[in-house]
Amino acid sequence: MKKISIDMDGVMADVYSQFTKMYTAETGLVKTVAELEGKPEGEVFEHALQYVTSPGFFRHAPLMEGCFDVVRRLNDRYKIFIVSAAMEFPTSLVEKHAWLNEHFPFIGWQQMVFCGSKEIIRADIMIDDHFKNLNFFTGETILYTQPHNKLADAGKHSRVNSWKEIERLLLP
Amino acid sequence: MKKISIDMDGVMADVYSQFTKMYTAETGLVKTVAELEGKPEGEVFEHALQYVTSPGFFRHAPLMEGCFDVVRRLNDRYKIFIVSAAMEFPTSLVEKHAWLNEHFPFIGWQQMVFCGSKEIIRADIMIDDHFKNLNFFTGETILYTQPHNKLADAGKHSRVNSWKEIERLLLP
Repeated sequence: MKKISIDMDGVMADVYSQFTKMYTAETGLVKTVAELEGKPEGEVFEHALQYVTSPGFFRHAPLMEGCFDVVRRLNDRYKIFIVSAAMEFPTSLVEKHAWLNEHFPFIGWQQMVFCGSKEIIRADIMIDDHFKNLNFFTGETILYTQPHNKLADAGKHSRVNSWKEIERLLLP
Repeated sequence: MKKISIDMDGVMADVYSQFTKMYTAETGLVKTVAELEGKPEGEVFEHALQYVTSPGFFRHAPLMEGCFDVVRRLNDRYKIFIVSAAMEFPTSLVEKHAWLNEHFPFIGWQQMVFCGSKEIIRADIMIDDHFKNLNFFTGETILYTQPHNKLADAGKHSRVNSWKEIERLLLP
């Protein structure tokens, strides 16, 4: 059974929705899509670090559209692992664990990985929204479109814009 | 630079010392070394599950003898990752993170991995006290002696009985 490493933030969990919501709550202003594209979150949102370290940022992130159903079906056909960079913000450890248990009760603790660098991950396929994770990986790489990577050339990675496209690619 | 995956419990952190201490506190009895050998912790300590889920079990585990110095030197010569099965007991996530920060301040968050199954780990060398982790691994495997594995044939794995022996093996 092929192994898939699936990223959380920006792939399963809609962290942009949290960023924009907290930005509006703080400033009363709204960020347009054009302002988000091609820039890292830390550049777009002056207080991004403050947002991600606020209690609830990860715990209450909405689920990405179409994610639940495709992950459930991938789980039958592949050995899936949820691999999330959680170590930089240790308060996120418990929140991310609880988020996974709430939204994906069929994913066992054996399938969860919280790490810093992903260069230690061995699998056949990696789905991620960050080049820094995909570029190190030795297997098949799928770049999940998010505003920060939208304008970049995907290079050797397959770009997908939705979970519908992941379904077409991995569950033909 | 070669990558090493280093286990925490039973390799860096002396969890047996925690088990025996809690057992004595609970029962007033002392476990002899002979009683511990060749059996999983859950078999030796009737309330092992209760012990590992008690606040402080991982946070206050003593450091293994000789560990600090060898890990510090390995960190100069290798790319080391601390890979710990922490997902089964989510309360351990924060305790293990704090333990690492206290005892190994030179280990960055990029080098920490908390997982369930270790079959997703890619590195050149793995140091672990459990066959279930080493048997899956594709690189060089080092079995760290602990009472539960002491009577078993190490098979294809190199057995070490102390951090002194790891030093001789990896820092010649």
